[in-house]
Parts: sequence; C-alpha cells; structure tokens
Amino acid sequence: MVIRLKPGAYEEYKRLHQNVPPDVLQTAHEHGIRNQTIFYRDGYLFRYFEYVGNDFEKDMAALAPSTSAVRQRWWELTSPLQQPLDTCGPGEWWAEMEEAFHGD
Amino acid sequence: MVIRLKPGAYEEYKRLHQNVPPDVLQTAHEHGIRNQTIFYRDGYLFRYFEYVGNDFEKDMAALAPSTSAVRQRWWELTSPLQQPLDTCGPGEWWAEMEEAFHGD
Repeated sequence: MVIRLKPGAYEEYKRLHQNVPPDVLQTAHEHGIRNQTIFYRDGYLFRYFEYVGNDFEKDMAALAPSTSAVRQRWWELTSPLQQPLDTCGPGEWWAEMEEAFHGD
Repeated sequence: MVIRLKPGAYEEYKRLHQNVPPDVLQTAHEHGIRNQTIFYRDGYLFRYFEYVGNDFEKDMAALAPSTSAVRQRWWELTSPLQQPLDTCGPGEWWAEMEEAFHGD
C-alpha cells in the first residue's frame, strides 16, 4: 500500500511510530497481520505486511479506527499527517498496489 | 526501494516479469535475496525483499548487470522502462527507503 505524507510531516510520523499503542499492535496481530514494515522516501510511505488469516475484509473491518477508542486516537494522530493519492477511490486511504512480480 | 516507470511502460514491465530469466532468479537466491515482491501504482514501483546473507554490499555487487551476459541482457530490457527518482545520488538506481516502522 502507498500513501503520501504532507510536507514536513515525516519526523512526527516517525516519532509516533516509535511508540505505537500496544493495543493497536496486538489487535493487528490477532487479525492476521505479520511482518509489517512502513518505508519512507521523498514524501511517500510504502506499507508492506503479510496476512495470515482467512477473511481479509472482515479482519480489516475489525481494525477500523471506529472499533476502539485507542485506535480512534491513533487515527486522529496519524491521519492528519497523511495525504492519500489523487487516484484513490471513495473511502480509500492507503492505496493498494498491484503485484508486478514475486520470487523467492 | 522505489523507482518510477516511464509513462506507458508498466504493461511491458509486467510482461517481462512474467518470464524473468531463471539464471537471474537463481543467482539472486544464491546471494541471499528472499521473499521479493515488486508492487506498482501510479507510475511508481516499490521493491521489497529480505536479505539473509552476511555481506550485503558484496552480494549486491555480485548481482550487478556486468557480471553475466544474462543479467546484462535483463538490464537492457528493464532499465529503459525505469526512471530513477530525482533525489537519487550518483550511481543510485532503485532508491533505498528508510524504515519508519516494523512490527510483527
């Protein structure tokens, strides 16, 4: 997934991610998210993770900001720093990318 | 790592990656590259892999285009489709990104 950061927002974004609320991390794990990394360069964030569950839509819905006060607060801290791509559809925030290649 | 594709180049890039030369894949594996995925959206390619060796610089040097005819040919097919970021340094092609977060 990819998203932009607003100009000058990276230091704050990185600082926040040094102390992600434990509840946010734990519930992500419970809903099948593994090996997650967020990378940055030149105003772009790229988010990579692997999903090990069996109902991706349901698990992602369970991680929506509205599902807990802690997640809502985390959203209120991080989302103002972000700027979705112009090509995002309605309701899309992080933009899904297409897999062009995979090898191991 | 991140790089741009030239306008209209994605279909050709994707087509080429459906048949990566076996020698390119095998030597990448021999030099410690695992779980590699290349993602695309809106003119940007993001490349993710995990490195399991113990001398990253040496292994990457061993995978340079000039080290084999097959890799040189692969480079000649793929690199004209790509456009490095404006912030790349001398000799940089794929731009390395900074890790802002990792969790598991």
